[in-house]
Amino acid sequence: MVQDQNRPDEKGTFREWLYITVFQSSTVAGKIFDIGLSVLILSNIILLMLESVPSISAKYEPAFQKFDVFFLVIFSGEYLLRLYCVRSAKKYAASFYGVIDLMAILPSYMEFLYPQWHVFMIVRCFRLLRIFRIFRMVRFLDESRILMLALIRGFRKILVFLFFVLLLAIFLGSLMYVVEFQKNSGFNTIPQSIYWAIVTITTVGYGDVAPVTATGKVIASFIMILGYAIIAVPTGILSASVIQEEKRNQGRRCPQCQVAGHDKEAIYCKNCGSKLSEQ
Amino acid sequence: MVQDQNRPDEKGTFREWLYITVFQSSTVAGKIFDIGLSVLILSNIILLMLESVPSISAKYEPAFQKFDVFFLVIFSGEYLLRLYCVRSAKKYAASFYGVIDLMAILPSYMEFLYPQWHVFMIVRCFRLLRIFRIFRMVRFLDESRILMLALIRGFRKILVFLFFVLLLAIFLGSLMYVVEFQKNSGFNTIPQSIYWAIVTITTVGYGDVAPVTATGKVIASFIMILGYAIIAVPTGILSASVIQEEKRNQGRRCPQCQVAGHDKEAIYCKNCGSKLSEQ
Amino acid sequence: MVQDQNRPDEKGTFREWLYITVFQSSTVAGKIFDIGLSVLILSNIILLMLESVPSISAKYEPAFQKFDVFFLVIFSGEYLLRLYCVRSAKKYAASFYGVIDLMAILPSYMEFLYPQWHVFMIVRCFRLLRIFRIFRMVRFLDESRILMLALIRGFRKILVFLFFVLLLAIFLGSLMYVVEFQKNSGFNTIPQSIYWAIVTITTVGYGDVAPVTATGKVIASFIMILGYAIIAVPTGILSASVIQEEKRNQGRRCPQCQVAGHDKEAIYCKNCGSKLSEQ
Amino acid sequence: MVQDQNRPDEKGTFREWLYITVFQSSTVAGKIFDIGLSVLILSNIILLMLESVPSISAKYEPAFQKFDVFFLVIFSGEYLLRLYCVRSAKKYAASFYGVIDLMAILPSYMEFLYPQWHVFMIVRCFRLLRIFRIFRMVRFLDESRILMLALIRGFRKILVFLFFVLLLAIFLGSLMYVVEFQKNSGFNTIPQSIYWAIVTITTVGYGDVAPVTATGKVIASFIMILGYAIIAVPTGILSASVIQEEKRNQGRRCPQCQVAGHDKEAIYCKNCGSKLSEQ
Repeated sequence: MVQDQNRPDEKGTFREWLYITVFQSSTVAGKIFDIGLSVLILSNIILLMLESVPSISAKYEPAFQKFDVFFLVIFSGEYLLRLYCVRSAKKYAASFYGVIDLMAILPSYMEFLYPQWHVFMIVRCFRLLRIFRIFRMVRFLDESRILMLALIRGFRKILVFLFFVLLLAIFLGSLMYVVEFQKNSGFNTIPQSIYWAIVTITTVGYGDVAPVTATGKVIASFIMILGYAIIAVPTGILSASVIQEEKRNQGRRCPQCQVAGHDKEAIYCKNCGSKLSEQ
Repeated sequence: MVQDQNRPDEKGTFREWLYITVFQSSTVAGKIFDIGLSVLILSNIILLMLESVPSISAKYEPAFQKFDVFFLVIFSGEYLLRLYCVRSAKKYAASFYGVIDLMAILPSYMEFLYPQWHVFMIVRCFRLLRIFRIFRMVRFLDESRILMLALIRGFRKILVFLFFVLLLAIFLGSLMYVVEFQKNSGFNTIPQSIYWAIVTITTVGYGDVAPVTATGKVIASFIMILGYAIIAVPTGILSASVIQEEKRNQGRRCPQCQVAGHDKEAIYCKNCGSKLSEQ
Repeated sequence: MVQDQNRPDEKGTFREWLYITVFQSSTVAGKIFDIGLSVLILSNIILLMLESVPSISAKYEPAFQKFDVFFLVIFSGEYLLRLYCVRSAKKYAASFYGVIDLMAILPSYMEFLYPQWHVFMIVRCFRLLRIFRIFRMVRFLDESRILMLALIRGFRKILVFLFFVLLLAIFLGSLMYVVEFQKNSGFNTIPQSIYWAIVTITTVGYGDVAPVTATGKVIASFIMILGYAIIAVPTGILSASVIQEEKRNQGRRCPQCQVAGHDKEAIYCKNCGSKLSEQ
Repeated sequence: MVQDQNRPDEKGTFREWLYITVFQSSTVAGKIFDIGLSVLILSNIILLMLESVPSISAKYEPAFQKFDVFFLVIFSGEYLLRLYCVRSAKKYAASFYGVIDLMAILPSYMEFLYPQWHVFMIVRCFRLLRIFRIFRMVRFLDESRILMLALIRGFRKILVFLFFVLLLAIFLGSLMYVVEFQKNSGFNTIPQSIYWAIVTITTVGYGDVAPVTATGKVIASFIMILGYAIIAVPTGILSASVIQEEKRNQGRRCPQCQVAGHDKEAIYCKNCGSKLSEQ
């Protein structure tokens, strides 16, 4: 974990206690901090959503402004806290979460100069990722780990597959353009036709654009059945990946971090180093 | 099974016979009772549906009212019967089915005070779950058991996945809001944009809201291909779960309750306790 | 095969040769007969489709009538031929294909009495099933056999699953009816709302009916994500079934009928009886 | 590889060096050539797309014409180069890529005679397939190879499945025609109804055609749930295929062409013949 490398040297100090509280969720204080922060982020997101509804924002404008200031203070304070308690502030500021935390408060400050920046506050929804920290407590970590591994294993295959789909969409879209563009305003440009092809292959099917000519409908039917069949490809790939991960993951669970798949003779958890129970 | 713990002590009495008839389907009387009840519930649901069609309800209003009274009497009687024949009426009333059975008759009584409660009668469709009791007879139990186990095993993974999807929808919806809200009334609020994002990622694609700007269409295409690819994730997870369940489920079948997966040396069914046939 | 039981006793006669030609595709004459018949059925179907297009039928009305008579004569002749060359005409007439063959010619005769029966001629498309006879020749039999077995194995599980989906649709549809029916004409009856729920859970999403209230959209989003997740269930079931079938199907292929999965020590094909090659 | 058979005899000449550069990507020059060509093709496709947008093409008409000439010269030169450096020009011209390369430049020449041929320039998007050459460098070859094998293994099964789906669509479409054609202009012909059935079974659901009668909606619901269930079939098939391929693919990787799955005792790569590393 990147944080541990960034843990302050001096042991037993307030700064180290702060670090453990803010960046980890192993202690009670840490758990409380994480849950409290998640609640704040969630309520902030919900407020931003409601604010975007004209009827509501018109009614409670002043309240919303107060809340914006409140959350700005809270999140700025949290950011400074994090900068303070890590060993190297630079390293944290450059880390993934560091950038997200900064992006979350930046728009509020920019807003004083450019009001239209207000809308970008929604980038805060990225902070919801922190909620995964809590999953650790409710034993979800293992599941998401397997999922991640399966996704990573299947990733390149799925990328090749998506490239194929895109190529197919470009060609079939262009074909439909040639067939329909004189009779159907929905296919009046090639990019538009490709957009339609993607809508169709992925079986989304808005219906805002639909073929009108007989030839177009025949081609469309072919595209649909094609999309219906090839959706099986990524599924097959991921099924294989997940099954392999499952196999790899049979084994003892760590009582501390719930990670499984330790070797039979392992004594300590390979993930968090805590003692494993006998089986 | 919760019912068995709730079985009256005294053996061979009418009350115990009633209990077996009403709560179990092992005896002929029990089978008849279950089938009859299912038929009544089904016909009640169908009646409620027809009643909601203005043209029909206008024509047969009196008949519908008679039927409402009829079903109210029947289901109330059944509820009292259940309360009577269990050992502890409180325990049954607090059980899952007990609550459903009460909810099924409550609206009819509330209706006398507040007519608008009439519509809530539809909660009775929950009672259709009782039909699963009948599956026991037609050997469907085993299949639904494996299904359930597979779902339970895959449940947490799927929950993590759904959380990811929701997070994705929130972010992509907000993004589309920023891109489209000035040109497209369909994206005039963030919740509305998130609704659109969910409609798109899940490949439902109503088309009541669709992007109009070029940028919006590019992002939409990206979202669709994404949704098309990630639908593979829950599928992969469940395929793995089902395959594992299948493996676990190879073995002898109980001639009584059809449950399989007994240990090689088992002599009695671990589910219903009846003697297993040799292999 | 049901036909073989229906094969005439006397060997080497014209009637037996006719039987082999009409009902089997092992001989050259049989292959020619099957292919010719399939071509006729296909062209008949295409004609019926074109006839349903007003602009075309208006132009070529007389030609269509001639073709109707032509195909009536052909198919009637074929039906009589089949009745003649089987051992028991009754048994054939009662068989699956016998009924389809009769249904295919019946509407044309009824048409003389009731012209509106004309439209039912389309039941002939059922006869396309005969085309599967030809797959035998092009080595598709084995694939469709595995597919069938996988479907049969997964059938009951999928039935349970579909029952769940239906139950879900009934409940969620009723819920949406309660939420939307005052503001949205698309949800003015419960059956209509259930129809919408099915359209949504299956991710078809026509968009002819869509929620308008905020509550309705939240519930709809939930339904979509649900449908998105549970589509994984039948897929997982069938993946497991197909994989098991594949395993079962490893083994020698019959050089004659391409059926695989013979026991190691088998000498003759268990399907067509021809000699198996050594491995 | 077809190209190698087409490699010129004389070694070490400029012509052979040219061949290796143009047709292979093992040398640095070859890599540069492939990447450069891919960039040119991509930019050409993007230009053709933009050109199809009336507003843009009106503004930059002269620039587009200049680019058309530029790409015509480039691609014609490349085609002549390929014709020159292969051993037998005829063999290359008849090969898959040879035909595509010709098709890519033909429309530009035809345009001088028939301007309306301009639109067919889009066939150039086929040339994007050359980009797969580059995957070789970034180790994607192996993934696409497994994918291909899985697709080929599952191909015939999927074909049988698609034939079933088509048959189903024809029958259900005709059924809906019989039910709806008098009340609903969307079902006024059988082909149109079949088009609707395909749109529904594949869960695309444009909504441009939707049932209006009660019977029609019931049948439609049935079709949707059916399509929802049978989408599992191709997925199951492909999952099985991919899993088998994965199993087959465990083994050593070739350091040169990244192909895996060599026998334990293999010394040279079975694909490109280069020495394998020990394990």
